[in-house]
Amino acid sequence: MTRLYNRRQRVSDAMTRRLPAYYRHLRLLEKRGVQYISSRTLGEEMGLTDSQIRQDLSSFGGFGRQGRGYQVSALRQTIESILGLDQGHHVVIIGAGRLGTAIAAFRGFSNVGFTIAAMFDANPAVCGTTIEEIPVLPIDEMEAWSKEHPFQIAVIAVPKNAAQSAVDAACACGVRGVLNFAETDISVPEGVLLRSVHLSDSLMALSFRMHEEEIISGQKDDWL
Amino acid sequence: MTRLYNRRQRVSDAMTRRLPAYYRHLRLLEKRGVQYISSRTLGEEMGLTDSQIRQDLSSFGGFGRQGRGYQVSALRQTIESILGLDQGHHVVIIGAGRLGTAIAAFRGFSNVGFTIAAMFDANPAVCGTTIEEIPVLPIDEMEAWSKEHPFQIAVIAVPKNAAQSAVDAACACGVRGVLNFAETDISVPEGVLLRSVHLSDSLMALSFRMHEEEIISGQKDDWL
Repeated sequence: MTRLYNRRQRVSDAMTRRLPAYYRHLRLLEKRGVQYISSRTLGEEMGLTDSQIRQDLSSFGGFGRQGRGYQVSALRQTIESILGLDQGHHVVIIGAGRLGTAIAAFRGFSNVGFTIAAMFDANPAVCGTTIEEIPVLPIDEMEAWSKEHPFQIAVIAVPKNAAQSAVDAACACGVRGVLNFAETDISVPEGVLLRSVHLSDSLMALSFRMHEEEIISGQKDDWL
Repeated sequence: MTRLYNRRQRVSDAMTRRLPAYYRHLRLLEKRGVQYISSRTLGEEMGLTDSQIRQDLSSFGGFGRQGRGYQVSALRQTIESILGLDQGHHVVIIGAGRLGTAIAAFRGFSNVGFTIAAMFDANPAVCGTTIEEIPVLPIDEMEAWSKEHPFQIAVIAVPKNAAQSAVDAACACGVRGVLNFAETDISVPEGVLLRSVHLSDSLMALSFRMHEEEIISGQKDDWL
């Protein structure tokens, strides 16, 4: 079987973005009872080209069969494993304000195998409560708590000015990945992975595409 | 001046994702008082290659000067215009639950020139209130309201099963772009742009990179 890492090369950012989309779509196909799918149909459904699909999926090994296409369930399982979703990662959310609460209420994380084990906050008024059955604990107890309840990922949902200290506290607990929702630059020590989510980027990208449509359709032509 | 659209070609998805990142970074540089920046330094700060930066920015015209680099403020203004941020888009949020409230409280949208004009919800208990000074109105009054207060973008923050009808209602108001946070497939009529935000994709991508690190560092080698 071909290996994705047979040259020990890192996977591109673009591919890293497509992997979760493949995973979501394959789950949907399984739900619909689809057993095999051609690269062409998969491409049409996902808005990717035929050749892109074949190139991406060939790196995971020979799941495509002449005339039958990809075996949906096997491919879903492979991508699940590649994404590390079968490892049962435990996640904590730092910040139990509006954003943290919305993230806790969001079912999507547990649907793909992540367990939100606890939330942490500096505000004594919310500590001791639960949000969506997730306990909210004092941030200064996080390190002690982590000894009994190891976690691998911290989601940062605190205001900008508290973001770096939240990350530092998570790193002191031996966290391996940080998902940052605070719209500010933060740094992590060597060996810890950081991914920042910029919610406004999506809105800017949408605005760009709306604008692009105007230009292409000739309604507007004088912007540059 | 070179035109980004001189061949009337659409910009790639990858470039569409980089544009907001350039914009954010240039704003940061302006705040820091930086007037000129080389492609090399910009690349290092943004985690892109020198040649990627030069290729991307050359499509916007000749802002780079030999020995001086790019003029930060002019480049920021150009990208602002390309992204349509100078158009003062009005946005409504459909869904005043946890996610909608978190989005309303998020300063990032107004920071980049979007005005959140109103929120709409089906629950009478929240209608008539304000969230972060944004009025919450009944969803069935949206169309009438839009006649007096035209908006271009709708943010969908309702549960899955209400997502399509929320989108339909927004489209009936003449919306041109939809930013969908409901983790479900929705469809829009021809001419309306749709962008879906999958919050769990970021967590999956992070998990993948954590997993990839293990494989590269040789701690784990038997996953495929």
